Amino acid sequence: MRITLEEVARHVGGRVVGDGSIVLSGVAGIKEARPGQLTFLSNPKYERFLATTRASAVVVSPEHSGAGPDATPLLVAENPYVAFAQAVELFSGTTIAPPAGVHPAAVVAPSAILGTEVSIGPHAVVMDGARIGDRSVLHPGVCIGRDVVVGSDTVIHPNVSVAASSAVGDRVIIHAGTVIGSDGFGFAREEEGHRKVPQIGNVVIEDDVEIGANVCIDRATVGTTRIGRGTKIDNLVQIGHNVVVGEGALIVAQVGISGSTEVGRGVVLAGQAGIAGHIEIGDGAMVGAQSGVTKSVLPGERVSGYPAQRHSVSKRILACMRELPSLFRRVRDLERRIVRIESEGECQGPAKGR
Amino acid sequence: MRITLEEVARHVGGRVVGDGSIVLSGVAGIKEARPGQLTFLSNPKYERFLATTRASAVVVSPEHSGAGPDATPLLVAENPYVAFAQAVELFSGTTIAPPAGVHPAAVVAPSAILGTEVSIGPHAVVMDGARIGDRSVLHPGVCIGRDVVVGSDTVIHPNVSVAASSAVGDRVIIHAGTVIGSDGFGFAREEEGHRKVPQIGNVVIEDDVEIGANVCIDRATVGTTRIGRGTKIDNLVQIGHNVVVGEGALIVAQVGISGSTEVGRGVVLAGQAGIAGHIEIGDGAMVGAQSGVTKSVLPGERVSGYPAQRHSVSKRILACMRELPSLFRRVRDLERRIVRIESEGECQGPAKGR
Amino acid sequence: MRITLEEVARHVGGRVVGDGSIVLSGVAGIKEARPGQLTFLSNPKYERFLATTRASAVVVSPEHSGAGPDATPLLVAENPYVAFAQAVELFSGTTIAPPAGVHPAAVVAPSAILGTEVSIGPHAVVMDGARIGDRSVLHPGVCIGRDVVVGSDTVIHPNVSVAASSAVGDRVIIHAGTVIGSDGFGFAREEEGHRKVPQIGNVVIEDDVEIGANVCIDRATVGTTRIGRGTKIDNLVQIGHNVVVGEGALIVAQVGISGSTEVGRGVVLAGQAGIAGHIEIGDGAMVGAQSGVTKSVLPGERVSGYPAQRHSVSKRILACMRELPSLFRRVRDLERRIVRIESEGECQGPAKGR
Repeated sequence: MRITLEEVARHVGGRVVGDGSIVLSGVAGIKEARPGQLTFLSNPKYERFLATTRASAVVVSPEHSGAGPDATPLLVAENPYVAFAQAVELFSGTTIAPPAGVHPAAVVAPSAILGTEVSIGPHAVVMDGARIGDRSVLHPGVCIGRDVVVGSDTVIHPNVSVAASSAVGDRVIIHAGTVIGSDGFGFAREEEGHRKVPQIGNVVIEDDVEIGANVCIDRATVGTTRIGRGTKIDNLVQIGHNVVVGEGALIVAQVGISGSTEVGRGVVLAGQAGIAGHIEIGDGAMVGAQSGVTKSVLPGERVSGYPAQRHSVSKRILACMRELPSLFRRVRDLERRIVRIESEGECQGPAKGR
Repeated sequence: MRITLEEVARHVGGRVVGDGSIVLSGVAGIKEARPGQLTFLSNPKYERFLATTRASAVVVSPEHSGAGPDATPLLVAENPYVAFAQAVELFSGTTIAPPAGVHPAAVVAPSAILGTEVSIGPHAVVMDGARIGDRSVLHPGVCIGRDVVVGSDTVIHPNVSVAASSAVGDRVIIHAGTVIGSDGFGFAREEEGHRKVPQIGNVVIEDDVEIGANVCIDRATVGTTRIGRGTKIDNLVQIGHNVVVGEGALIVAQVGISGSTEVGRGVVLAGQAGIAGHIEIGDGAMVGAQSGVTKSVLPGERVSGYPAQRHSVSKRILACMRELPSLFRRVRDLERRIVRIESEGECQGPAKGR
Repeated sequence: MRITLEEVARHVGGRVVGDGSIVLSGVAGIKEARPGQLTFLSNPKYERFLATTRASAVVVSPEHSGAGPDATPLLVAENPYVAFAQAVELFSGTTIAPPAGVHPAAVVAPSAILGTEVSIGPHAVVMDGARIGDRSVLHPGVCIGRDVVVGSDTVIHPNVSVAASSAVGDRVIIHAGTVIGSDGFGFAREEEGHRKVPQIGNVVIEDDVEIGANVCIDRATVGTTRIGRGTKIDNLVQIGHNVVVGEGALIVAQVGISGSTEVGRGVVLAGQAGIAGHIEIGDGAMVGAQSGVTKSVLPGERVSGYPAQRHSVSKRILACMRELPSLFRRVRDLERRIVRIESEGECQGPAKGR
């Protein structure tokens, strides 16, 4: 595919600085780009590469619209990352969709209901009472349990399991190996051991959610574990029973959310963070990477550390920790000096009866 | 299903306070419950909901037997969570078990031995020499390797892989995507790189174990990686080669246990904890969430933090850390004051030959 | 299999101290070994078992060549762990390889190209344009996407998914449930929510790499996510889009590497460590377990803690933390003493106009 910079600019709603007639053949990262490719600058860390990139054009924000070397045309956009995403769409063209229809090596229960143009790959299984919406794709090895409802235009990658009674919305993407609707970790301690609490709730994944690979989302004990509209979940994330995640949240890889916790709208949970059970993370809150959140977080608050507290406080504590060895030296010095003062005081001072 | 509160009380061995003739149609969490439903109070955090729940009856402990609002009948039980679990069983009724028999799309080796009423789903594979006990269920896409032994009444969910020579006991539940018997991470460093140490041991899962989704339990290098009777393992847990876990342990999501470590009976490892290799976690020990255990833990001990130490010590250290910024201020203040004292001392003191 | 100690010594290139004619029937760990078995001593923690092991012979390093009890013959080798690995190979004999050929329950696209003696298990899928090298094995339920290239002598365990356009080298081992080539976690924030950035790059796994179970390696946004030759990856590891891992690295279980980070040759990332995005971990660097690496690490450096810093510094800080409660006591004591000095000073000092 060969498109001029001017055409890309028109597609993404930006303006060209320099020669808009140059022809581009693809997109690439700023470090890897070769002549003929379009790249972008969004992360300030990469500003230094602006002068050296071999790309034929760079998507930049207005503040960098004058910064390029004379020869490199720029595409100036308000949000360079969004513009780049749109350009990638332009160059990626139409990916080859799997063919509609049920592969002869798939197993679909007679009572299951399939929409139009559904694609069901080899070795996929759709159990009794399940419904699959129009144009949705089940890749090979996907297992859709009894009475599961899958919406339209949803793509479920290989070897995903969606267990009985779960509901998955429209335009959802679930990556390979993910498990939706496994039993929650619920045991009542008895003298003879751990008694399993039956997990009879379900999981609901709302529209436009994307879920990474090898994620686990447990069904509710009773009621529903819910992932809100437009939320994006990275790989290897654990979501416990009865968790409710609001709309538009971002949950980065290897995060764990314990049972019955409520995560608000637009919350960001950075990688490997752990969230305790039965708490609330308020709308728009941000939790730092590897944090351990042990109590509820107010809306809009930014927390980090273990136990997680306001990020400004955590940062100050971390700064103090780095100075601990010197603090110990300072205290030792004070101790020496005070001993000297005390002993001098005794020499100088009035003879206290001794 | 419609059952009176009195009938539930009889089933779970509790007593009714209030009107035992009310008819219940199901169970729910204390916040979500609607009229007609039974709920329970076990977590003290939720005590405040006792007054506002819309449930028609609440399972409570004896200490709350007088606390309900006049109108809400109570079911008083020694262990409300156990009683609730039993009530859930009552209301959940019989789940629809997959039909006995081998699905025509399953592949079972001729030399495999199947018990009576075994259910083998589509696209499951049972390899040569494997044995599956009576009434056990292999869901779709399960792969049972050569010479694996699976006990009776065991349920293995979709896309689980149990590799050659492993043994799985009776009444075991393994959730989707879990891998039993992958090679341990064993490499000997040579000049040319890492030489793989063949992993020729196996994995033994004893009776009544439950294993979550996308868990990994590696086979032993030589000998056996063993999960003791009645132990419950949550999702995304990593268990290294030659680990031995005792009976009745609880291992919460995303925990990692390094090779050759022994975990005692009834140990609790909270979420995201990491346990070093070649150490012992004594019977009944508890390891806090996100802890990093670097050396052996005595029986009954409770540890937390990184590196994990006695929980009481960790807590004191965390409390100190929160006070670090103020400690720095205090030390700075001391320094100023001691400088003043020292300079005053010089003024006051005897003229030292100057 | 029954082999004399002398034969083992010849095979592994070591020398016998004691009776080399004894017959060995297998290998085992030093604690579990029974008469007739060969064991080894490599971890110094296990030195104490040298005197009590029931093994018939022990592989030891030269420094232990005189340490065995009189009756236990020793096999002395420069690197006992490597020698043991070789001995295990000797005793494990030839594992039963799956039969060459395409199982009738596998689905291989007509345009896919298979090498000689390829083994494709039941319910595996090989899509259009894929190529599988000579003698490679696809276990049951493996899904190989469009245009994927798999090298020779590579083994891919059950239910692994390798998505379109990925490339896997020769002699690679991928354990069960792993996902190669899932979409990177790339979203551009727009007012209406998170816009997916199409992930049109791929993943390249070079020769001699081993990848554990339930690992996730995301495809690049544009360009390539690359795992270098001879690198070994443990279970449940997350590798983000555009990450480049050098040759011969060791990545232990549950590590997470964020997008676009470069990990050098021979780097060791210990269990549960988290690495931020867009940074560089220099050749030969070592990252401690559970560390959080937030900025680039120099070649050969050893870092630990959160945020990760030089291990020697982290260790000193941890040592200080353990002493924090006592430091608080010491500061309180200093405060008391300085108050006393100050008040004494006021008594003693010259009357300041009062």
